[in-house]
Amino acid sequence: MRSVTGRALKVLDAFSVERTHLSLSEISRYAGLPMATTHRLVAELAAWGALERGSDGKYGIGLRLWEVGALAPRGLGLREVAMPFLEDLYEATHENVQLAVLDGLEVVYVERIFGRDAVDVFSRVGARWPAHATGVGLVLLAYATTEVQERYLAAPLTAFTEKTIVDAARLRRVLADVRRTGIAVSDRQVTLDAMSVAAPVRGAANEVVAALSIIVRAGTVQPMPLAAAVVTAARGISRALREPGGRPRPSQSR
Amino acid sequence: MRSVTGRALKVLDAFSVERTHLSLSEISRYAGLPMATTHRLVAELAAWGALERGSDGKYGIGLRLWEVGALAPRGLGLREVAMPFLEDLYEATHENVQLAVLDGLEVVYVERIFGRDAVDVFSRVGARWPAHATGVGLVLLAYATTEVQERYLAAPLTAFTEKTIVDAARLRRVLADVRRTGIAVSDRQVTLDAMSVAAPVRGAANEVVAALSIIVRAGTVQPMPLAAAVVTAARGISRALREPGGRPRPSQSR
Repeated sequence: MRSVTGRALKVLDAFSVERTHLSLSEISRYAGLPMATTHRLVAELAAWGALERGSDGKYGIGLRLWEVGALAPRGLGLREVAMPFLEDLYEATHENVQLAVLDGLEVVYVERIFGRDAVDVFSRVGARWPAHATGVGLVLLAYATTEVQERYLAAPLTAFTEKTIVDAARLRRVLADVRRTGIAVSDRQVTLDAMSVAAPVRGAANEVVAALSIIVRAGTVQPMPLAAAVVTAARGISRALREPGGRPRPSQSR
Repeated sequence: MRSVTGRALKVLDAFSVERTHLSLSEISRYAGLPMATTHRLVAELAAWGALERGSDGKYGIGLRLWEVGALAPRGLGLREVAMPFLEDLYEATHENVQLAVLDGLEVVYVERIFGRDAVDVFSRVGARWPAHATGVGLVLLAYATTEVQERYLAAPLTAFTEKTIVDAARLRRVLADVRRTGIAVSDRQVTLDAMSVAAPVRGAANEVVAALSIIVRAGTVQPMPLAAAVVTAARGISRALREPGGRPRPSQSR
């Protein structure tokens, strides 16, 4: 996008998890924009609150942009409806609990509650991850459109461990199993010490809008007893999404 | 702002908690922009992922904007560092727990965990609230700059209940008490059934960056025993913020 709006969005693109605090010249470099343009755009974005200048003179994403982002139906909106059910699942198990959606061909984590003593998990809220290795990813891929599935299956499948599914024909069979059982198990396919069990969350039109998973230390427990808890919580979220006003959106407490 | 960037930001301003799904003509009306301009800006914002079109043809805030917003050091960044301590406080009490920051003269809620059986609370993540009535607001106001305090005290103080502090001289004394004790108590000052107890969260330079509170049913418990738990958790967050890499930002799990 070479429009002014496109350039302002490039300024925002300069920020990432690894780059949360940037100087003007860093923004200019990462956004690929001249300093004068960067200076003007940053001033406009800061005046609105999309950027905030810290005491070190560097810029970060502003609270106002965070507030507007929080209105995303698939972000914090979904999270607000789902959170009580995530809390229940966490209280019942004290294991890691994650909620994710599909964006393009990637999984985006919308919420997580991590057990203090639970197995380590690579992920953070807002992070992206390939879909074929994780429990939530397998669920989201299994219920994605044929077009998304075919695009995914046509691309190389990265191996994270020796257990990761890298063969398209095998992944196709696994996705069919997920659709049949309503459960996905990723056993040591991301790291050799973790297993995740995931289930679909359905929206008002019964379409799969998200996936819920629990991640435990591999080899400590069978997936099926865990699946019952995950499916129960996922169905609870689905029911809440179907209720009047339960459409994913930031909710008032009363 | 009358620039192109300013107009694109006006499109984002059209969305709010009450207006999460808008048609093109609604965006045009709320943003105060001509339809042709709105159409072009919405197309650019949607191409980048700042807006998403739903199956009903209406637009909502997009997942990409939510992701960028999640990079805000005072939003999700702070939340990621604070969440384990909020979980601890919630597990220890099963009462409502809230984390908030000051933006301008208002309190913005960054995170909350609500007890299923706890007293009802008016708030949501990303919501704004006047500072003088709530526990977190009194803490944030007590440690704000003199300029912010004077601006706050010069404006009329809205009464939410008969207990709300509406007298500037009394509010000034209460703020001095908060600075002396490091604790704020809002007893039935927002609703007649709720009491909150709040404590400051300090950043790397020992400045107050946020406030943590617990909200219980009024009259069921004395504030001081609660204060010990709140102060403990708030100090834990402050310590985590001082650690290398603990500067409020979205964190990797490992």
